[in-house]
Amino acid sequence: MALIVQKYGGTSVGSLERISRVADKVAAASAAGDDLIVVLSAMTGETDRLLTLAKTIDPQPNPRELDVLLSTGEQVTIALLSMALEKRGCPARSYTGGQVRILTDSAFNKARITDIDAERLRNDLSCGRVLVVAGFQGVDEAGNITTLGRGGSDTTAVALAAALKADECQIYTDVDGVYTTDPRVVPQARRLDRITYEEMLEMASLGAKVLQIRSVEFASKYNVPLRVLSSFTEGAGTLITSEEDGMEQALISGIAFNRDEAKLTILGVPDQPGVAYRILGPVAEANIEVDMIVQNIAEDTTTDFTFTVHRNDYDKVLQILHGVARDLGAREVTGDNKIVKISLVGVGMRSHAGIASTMFRALAEEGINIRMISTSEIKVSVVVDEKYLELGVRALHVAFQLEAAAPSKNG
Amino acid sequence: MALIVQKYGGTSVGSLERISRVADKVAAASAAGDDLIVVLSAMTGETDRLLTLAKTIDPQPNPRELDVLLSTGEQVTIALLSMALEKRGCPARSYTGGQVRILTDSAFNKARITDIDAERLRNDLSCGRVLVVAGFQGVDEAGNITTLGRGGSDTTAVALAAALKADECQIYTDVDGVYTTDPRVVPQARRLDRITYEEMLEMASLGAKVLQIRSVEFASKYNVPLRVLSSFTEGAGTLITSEEDGMEQALISGIAFNRDEAKLTILGVPDQPGVAYRILGPVAEANIEVDMIVQNIAEDTTTDFTFTVHRNDYDKVLQILHGVARDLGAREVTGDNKIVKISLVGVGMRSHAGIASTMFRALAEEGINIRMISTSEIKVSVVVDEKYLELGVRALHVAFQLEAAAPSKNG
Repeated sequence: MALIVQKYGGTSVGSLERISRVADKVAAASAAGDDLIVVLSAMTGETDRLLTLAKTIDPQPNPRELDVLLSTGEQVTIALLSMALEKRGCPARSYTGGQVRILTDSAFNKARITDIDAERLRNDLSCGRVLVVAGFQGVDEAGNITTLGRGGSDTTAVALAAALKADECQIYTDVDGVYTTDPRVVPQARRLDRITYEEMLEMASLGAKVLQIRSVEFASKYNVPLRVLSSFTEGAGTLITSEEDGMEQALISGIAFNRDEAKLTILGVPDQPGVAYRILGPVAEANIEVDMIVQNIAEDTTTDFTFTVHRNDYDKVLQILHGVARDLGAREVTGDNKIVKISLVGVGMRSHAGIASTMFRALAEEGINIRMISTSEIKVSVVVDEKYLELGVRALHVAFQLEAAAPSKNG
Repeated sequence: MALIVQKYGGTSVGSLERISRVADKVAAASAAGDDLIVVLSAMTGETDRLLTLAKTIDPQPNPRELDVLLSTGEQVTIALLSMALEKRGCPARSYTGGQVRILTDSAFNKARITDIDAERLRNDLSCGRVLVVAGFQGVDEAGNITTLGRGGSDTTAVALAAALKADECQIYTDVDGVYTTDPRVVPQARRLDRITYEEMLEMASLGAKVLQIRSVEFASKYNVPLRVLSSFTEGAGTLITSEEDGMEQALISGIAFNRDEAKLTILGVPDQPGVAYRILGPVAEANIEVDMIVQNIAEDTTTDFTFTVHRNDYDKVLQILHGVARDLGAREVTGDNKIVKISLVGVGMRSHAGIASTMFRALAEEGINIRMISTSEIKVSVVVDEKYLELGVRALHVAFQLEAAAPSKNG
């Protein structure tokens, strides 16, 4: 008999009919003998509806009161699912974040979990009840309601799994697992049976938005086996675990990409200490996130400095850089907001040379010019012109034989 | 500087625009120097919407989970009003029933308040904050969310006023006070400046649905001055207090009526002990509430037994009585579901004879036949044919000079 934490997202509980389907699934798992904790998000659209109410009253609503408001979304779904389970003869009990209690700091709207009081949950589990817990919310020491920020329900599920030492944390969503790349771009994309936390982190941050990054970090830290699977179809989904699990390790796990990039270059910058800070400082102060940063070796006494930002921030950053260039006596500012980033991800590349060269050859054979390159331990990213996105991803998918069972090694 | 509890009902917070108006009112009262606790209901229709969701899942939803669901309605309004107050520079903080905490028994859906922990509220008040409390809800000893049943927000307000020894509990609603009778029937009806708890209880239970009965009982028990006033217009409303307050006491305070009555008579019942129980037992078992009961003296060995019920229950009770009549050997069962009840209410009638005779004469002069009579310490009720309702109420309103300042005595 295993202890399983299941998390269902907003689309999975988006209507009464879907809540009924979740109830069927949960009741069946409970009847099969597993101990179950179910974490729920608000119904799709509900959080946005509440947010609109708040912003109509005040474009900058009081953060404490915003959390009081938003937390009602999950409270509705946990009550409805518990009713549906009880109706099926499956004993169930709902818990708000405060009732568990899921203790957080007092950073309203983006609180972090500091502790979970698992005692009451354990008692209820031992009575044979399914526990239905509101995701995304907690309470601070003073008893104020807090929320964890968007996507926080995944974090709630992983935190509960860690606190109760669950055998597995299952994240039900509208996709049936993690794929080698986006199937809309490469129809031959293959669902991965397993992937490491690190790979998942690189895939997620690079645009394959299946899981919230924080929850993967959390799962990795507490070594909670995470499984991504569909609430609408059957199937084992993708298991996300640590590398040490004796799993067969593919060279490359997947290809992530990001369409929302723009790149900016400041040319002929004096090659002096502190220049990078003088360029990026004003960008950071404007609350703009920088993704890739590349600086090549200096020619004579000047160098070129290139970085990428979200495409929405392109115009603003361009303006900032013109000021910076004047101050630094740099030669020129150029930019391009029609570029994309493509990344190969895989823990296997650590021990294998030649990944990058295979990648560059595959792109060259299609006539795709590489504008920027950046690498980390388990990923290689390139920036190419937007129009080459699909061609590039498909070429790489073939080059690394991701459509079939990939060549593997022992991890 | 007074401590005032204000309660706003569902129609008063039924839209963002109305919440803004309440915020203006509250902020003004706060700026004037009063300490304020504001109790809110859910937005009009919200409780019904949630109830429909629950009943779609299960016509008899789990009572514990139903309270988890329904309590979100008030949580939304307290958050929105607190935001609106903060936006106006008026420091405010919302409290759910659990956060206050308002301790109740565990009778889900119809819980009763057992204790209020006023400590945290007092601290916040001393910091100059307006406290915005969710009505209708509490928690039991185990931390489960409970609700007080329909109209429970009035009870929350009175209970808070009692616990914090507030100077006044103001119930804001869509009428501007308690009237001598329904102004839709008698345009000359007059708003009462003051009325006693007892009179208000008789008025409320007889159909003038301004305040929830339980909250009036509660206010009477703890001697909390209650004021009914409009959230849409200015005005002092009606103050409800105890009789000892040295108030000028009118002979008759008002005329209540109830259109939803039906009467049933079982004729020729053997005049024996236990007969009343044998008649009303089966009615009570069917969960039907009986209002007036009249039994006249016996003629020979039999008597006639008459009572009134809600008109919706008429057919069911008729069926029950036919069975009872057979068992008892009674002669006949008759009934009439086209009758209404009219009642005179006033603590002044205690010490004045002649109220009933004035009433009967006024009705007789209009040719209205009285079908039943029942009296209590501070009320006289008659049952008449439905068609005479308006005529009867108007005749009585004139006979007791309620349109002008009524004749008074010292209470």
